[in-house]
Order: sequence, then structure tokens, then C-alpha cells
Amino acid sequence: MEELNQKGQLAKKSAAFLARMSSNEKKTALEKVANLLVERSGIILSANGKDLLEAENNGIKGPLIDRLTLNSERIGGIAEGLLQIAMLEDPVGEVISMKRRPNGLQIGQIRVPVGVIGIIYEARPNVTVDAAGLCLKTGNAVILRGGREAINSNMAIVKIIQEALISRGIPPEAVQLVENTDRQSAVAMMKLNEYLDILIPRGGAGLIKTVVENSRVPVIETGVGNCHAFVDESAKVKMAEEIVLNAKTQRPGVCNAIETLLVHVSVADTFLPVICDKLRDHNVEIRGDKYVTEIIGYAVPAVEEDWYAEYLDLIIAVKVVHSLSDAIIHINKYGSKHSETIITESYTNSQRFLSEIDAAAVYVNASTRFTDGFEFGFGAEIGISTQKLHARGPMGLKELTTTKYIIYGNGQIR
Amino acid sequence: MEELNQKGQLAKKSAAFLARMSSNEKKTALEKVANLLVERSGIILSANGKDLLEAENNGIKGPLIDRLTLNSERIGGIAEGLLQIAMLEDPVGEVISMKRRPNGLQIGQIRVPVGVIGIIYEARPNVTVDAAGLCLKTGNAVILRGGREAINSNMAIVKIIQEALISRGIPPEAVQLVENTDRQSAVAMMKLNEYLDILIPRGGAGLIKTVVENSRVPVIETGVGNCHAFVDESAKVKMAEEIVLNAKTQRPGVCNAIETLLVHVSVADTFLPVICDKLRDHNVEIRGDKYVTEIIGYAVPAVEEDWYAEYLDLIIAVKVVHSLSDAIIHINKYGSKHSETIITESYTNSQRFLSEIDAAAVYVNASTRFTDGFEFGFGAEIGISTQKLHARGPMGLKELTTTKYIIYGNGQIR
Repeated sequence: MEELNQKGQLAKKSAAFLARMSSNEKKTALEKVANLLVERSGIILSANGKDLLEAENNGIKGPLIDRLTLNSERIGGIAEGLLQIAMLEDPVGEVISMKRRPNGLQIGQIRVPVGVIGIIYEARPNVTVDAAGLCLKTGNAVILRGGREAINSNMAIVKIIQEALISRGIPPEAVQLVENTDRQSAVAMMKLNEYLDILIPRGGAGLIKTVVENSRVPVIETGVGNCHAFVDESAKVKMAEEIVLNAKTQRPGVCNAIETLLVHVSVADTFLPVICDKLRDHNVEIRGDKYVTEIIGYAVPAVEEDWYAEYLDLIIAVKVVHSLSDAIIHINKYGSKHSETIITESYTNSQRFLSEIDAAAVYVNASTRFTDGFEFGFGAEIGISTQKLHARGPMGLKELTTTKYIIYGNGQIR
Repeated sequence: MEELNQKGQLAKKSAAFLARMSSNEKKTALEKVANLLVERSGIILSANGKDLLEAENNGIKGPLIDRLTLNSERIGGIAEGLLQIAMLEDPVGEVISMKRRPNGLQIGQIRVPVGVIGIIYEARPNVTVDAAGLCLKTGNAVILRGGREAINSNMAIVKIIQEALISRGIPPEAVQLVENTDRQSAVAMMKLNEYLDILIPRGGAGLIKTVVENSRVPVIETGVGNCHAFVDESAKVKMAEEIVLNAKTQRPGVCNAIETLLVHVSVADTFLPVICDKLRDHNVEIRGDKYVTEIIGYAVPAVEEDWYAEYLDLIIAVKVVHSLSDAIIHINKYGSKHSETIITESYTNSQRFLSEIDAAAVYVNASTRFTDGFEFGFGAEIGISTQKLHARGPMGLKELTTTKYIIYGNGQIR
């Protein structure tokens, strides 16, 4: 696809420039972008208005409209986020190790930018700024392919970012937006392995599955979260209630909210009525196994698909298990390897859960809602990796870099 | 494909067992495998004889026969390699970081096995043992899909490895061989993302390209090496000669040998006649650009394909460049991002080369032949990654692991 080939070529060229920028230059550029976004917010809001009108005409409503909507306050928040990224430590140039070999060769491993990063995402225009900021900070060029719904907002934002880059003497192709939002432009990005070093899909399970299955560019899989809480027989009941309620209801639409509650049979009869009533008070629908539907009158029967579901909604699947082993087997089978928590007072069981659960983040006695770059102390994140290669869990700046071996010799041969 | 689905399922099950093994148990198991391979070497040699006979019948000859051939000494060497792997430090369980957050959550990042690793490789039976040893050491299950030429040797070897595993109480499915060596079994492996966590192709450029373009399993690209030496204007001539000669001729069939020599124009007239004569003395064919063919009578003209070529043979492409910048542009355009060296006395040029060349290993004043797990001090390697995700350069034990966040709480909610 012509648009993408051209953008890829230009991005690669600008990546060489970005890789040579000092931390100070990158910091100043990010500050300039943040200021200009605020200064030009009128332009962004007017473009965003077009997107919102079109969305309404297309019958889009509810949370999607909310995610698409920008206002002065939100733009201020986005710019604030950029200033925070600007203040973070630059990972590029870090010498990870440096050793002298017996033959006198001095072999160092240093952190360098990845090169060109592609990001395919859905309707949120704030991702456009976040992703551009994180890539710029780490010396990477980025090609952004956002959703059709936000195209006007994204075009306005990227134009302002490029204006800021130019004013700092940086090639504007460091941050590019794919203007074609057809399916074919996403497909073309997946085949752009000549220019793209990584492709990161951010969005729903369908988008991520398509990218994983079709991309020739190395992919970092992010974010599908079918997370579980397991209430063990020795759990402190009050703590279990608070954690389950928080993990399900504090923000049900995000990937680190829980979707399934597993309860040890020996506490089921006491714990289930209490937690289910509380969940119901928060308008959560209960879908239970046979044990659950028998003691909770308002629970509806769960079917096999429920154990796999990422509801992202006020629904919870509930199952009674006969042992920690059963809980581990269930989670490793149905989970999406994102975030899992056990509530227990048993030392042995907490250690087994931490060691045997195969997930990016495994908790003891805490809500899964903490799986997040800011909560983990990284200051920012580009997504939460649920794969095992390169990065696992919240991805901060370091995960947008790679390494290079540099070897100082004085004539060594083999 | 039935064989692979079944093997995948069994491998995944055994991976959970392997992940729980202590370093001592893995060490003892590797020692047992090494001893049993030597003890049963008669069986291996007889199977290898069948492979050699078949290869001869199929008209295979030269280096391929050499790579396929086993004898008592080689089996001893392979077993010795396993004992060395056994002695290395186990990366699994390393606590990479552990921090207490302001809310009291204690967030640790620990090193864990990847899970199930798939390896697709060509005719060398020693890879079967190396790969099994490295995976076992790092607590990973492995599915090996070797070349058709070595199938009898590989079957004999894997049977002995499994016998050793069983004797140590380890599920034999920790190391499995795909017995179907048709193209379709390779394709089936690329689609086995339900069970495989990583796929590593080891072999020629064709195999690697096919895997990269078709795999749904995350791939680590290894080994294609179109490496360069650049002789800068300030190079010490004697050192340049030794490095170029070594990097080209010491073992031309390996990925870290150089394929192209770039020479700065200001030293071309003095340096080229000397180095070309020496290369010719080592039976190296010279393919030169216009400048080279004009001053070296026996050089043949290089065509565009020569600059891309990974000869793995006694052939070298030679080009005269007008500046360091031209050399960097040439290498970044035609190179395979493996290993590159500059021979120079200029501090500034050495720093520019190290920073601007986009490759896994960048050298100053040394032969590219050192890009190798043993030479880098890792003690063993599973391959040399030429991609930027997860691992770059020689991959040791650490590169066969991933990480997991473990979070200790006492009731934290958001």
C-alpha cells in the first residue's frame, strides 16, 4: 500500500535522527508538544466535534462516545501526561553490562531505541498523544493507525505534534498518522516488516487476535484481561469481600478488572451469600455454577463461554472449587494470563499460587486493579503485555527499547 | 495436525512440572542425559549410519555430510557441552527487582521459564542435544523439529534423552521430537500458538524467512549474517589485514564471517592490492565495484545482489566508499543486522560507527567472528538473534526465560 510504504520509509529515516538525540533534546521537544497541544486546543476540539457528530449520525453511543470525547480539561490532562513523560529518566544509552573478556575484548550491552514502532488502536484520541510521547521519549519513530471514529481528532493532534517537532528541528515524520482507516491499511501495517520493528495492537480481543494471527512484524500482544480472584478457605472474609468488590466494580470496563470469582468450597456457604448480595447492590449480574445457583436465588446459570469471557461489564462468573489445585487449573485453562489474585492466610498456598499461576501479574491479598504502569511506579505505560516475549505486564519506557552489543578491540582475531 | 496437537498438549503439561524443578534437580538431570548419551553412543552411531547412507543415496555431499556425521569423539563433545550447561548458573527464580509502593504493595519481578519452546532446524543432530539441554536447564519444555536428513539420529538421541528424564522422575514429554519431517509439520508448528510460547528457527535464510512470514507463534529470528568490515582512512594497515582475513577465512561457512569489505577511498590504492592478494592466497574470490576491478586484475565485477549476499563461502564483495557516512549507509541498507566492524584509529569515527550502525553486535578493531555465546562469556547459546524484540545478539540461558510480576499485599484496593 503506497501510503504505508512511503510513511515507513520516512519513519525509518527519522528513526536514525531520533536515535542520536540527547535526553535533553527529547525532553524539550516533549514539553514543546505539550504546550502546543494546549495552545491549539481550539483546533483539536473543533476536529473532535466533527468526529462526535459523525459518531452520533452512525448511531454510536454510551461508553464509546465518552472515550471519543475531548474537552479543554481532557486536553490539559493529556498535556500534563506528556510533561510527566518528559520528566522520566531516559532509558536510552543505559549500559546494562560491560565486561572485559580474557582476550582483552571489552563487550558492552547498551540500551538503544527499537527503531520504528507501529501502533494499531481504536477510538481513543488520547492514545495518539500518549503513544507519540512514549515513542519520542525513547527515540523511536512511530506510525499510528487509530480508529475511523477518531480520524479528525487524530489528524488535528498529529499535525500539531509535527508542528512542534519542526520547531525543535526534528523531522516531522517521527510521528505519523495513517489517514486511511480502512481494514486494508491495518492489513498493510501487518506486512510492513521492511520498516516496522514492532507492532503493538491496543484494543478489543478481536483486533488483537487478528494482528497476532496475521502480522509479519513482531507483535507485542496487549491487554485482553480475563482476570480471576480466588477466595481460599483461610481467607479473611472481610478482606476478600473488599478485594472482590473493588476488582469487579471500581472500573469494570478495564482489562485488570476481574471477570470470574472462584471460591473454596469450605467457605462457599458463608462467603457467597454476603459477596453476592454486595455485588448485586452494585448492579453486578451473577452467573454461577450449579453450587452457586443453588444457594444464590438470583444467580443465573453460567455456561462454558462464561469462563472464557472478558465481560468488561457489570457481570461476574462465580464458581466453587474443591481445592487450590482446582483453582490453579481453572485459571491456567480459562485465563488470559493477565492478572490473578488469591485471598488467603495460608503461606504455603500463597507461594503455590504465585509460582504455579501462569500470568503477567500474580497477587496475594490485593486487588488486580493495580496492574498498571502508574501503579507499578513506571510513570507511564504503552499497554500491558500478556505475552511472554520481550515484555510481560505493564510496559514502560524500557520496554520500548532494545539492546545492542558494542565491542571495543585492539586487533583481536580468532 | 494430530501429532503436533498431541505433543503440544503434553509439552504444556510437562512445562508446569519443569517450572517447579529446583536448580539441583535440573543439574542432576542434565548430567544423567550426558552420561546416558555416551553410554548409548552405539545406538546413536548406528542410527546416524542410516542417515548417512540415505544422504549418500540422495546425492548429498560435502559440508552437509560433515554436519550430519557423528562419531564417538563428537558424541563425547556433545555430552561435554551438556555438562557445561549443567554447571552454568540457573537464571530461573532470579529476583530482578522488588520494590515497596507507597500503598504498601510489594511488587517483585522474577525470572521464570517461558513455557514451551519450539525449534525448527536443519541437518545437524548436535542441535538436538544442545537445544534440549538449554531448554531443560531453563525449565522449558521443547518440541524439536529437525531436518529430514537427520531423522534417524534425532530419534535415537531423543529416545535416550527421554530415558534419562524418566530415570530422574521427569516427564519424558519435556523433550519431544516431531517425527513427521514433511513441510506440513513445519507449517503446523507455526500455527501451534495454543501450546508454543516461542518458535526459534535455526538454519538458512529461506527457512527463517518462511517462519517469520507465516508463524502465529512469536518468533525469534536468528542467524542470517551478511556482515561487513569497514577499513577507515586512519586504520592501522596491518591490523586491518589481519581482521579482514580472519573474519573472511577462518570459518567462512558461519553467520559471523564477513561477506563484504568496505574500504575508504583514501587508503584504497595501498590497502586493496595487499588484502586482495592475501585473500586470493586463501582461495577467496573477489567481487569488486568499478574502483576495485580497475586496480585488481583478478577481481570480477560485483552486481547488486552481491551486496545483499550471505555467501557462507570463500567469496567476498569489495567496495570503495568515500566516507564513513557512505559506509554506514551501505551497511544499514544491505546488512542483516548481525555483526559489523570498523577498523580505525579515529575516536570520533569509532563512536559514530558504534552508535549509528543498526546491528546486534558492532565492533571496533576486532574480527566479527567473536559474535558467539561462548566468546561473549555466556557459556552456551541457542542462536544469535538478529531481531530487536526480546533478545538481540547471542542468546544464552537468560534469553530462554521470561518474567512475572508477583505482588504481595495485605488487602490493598483502589
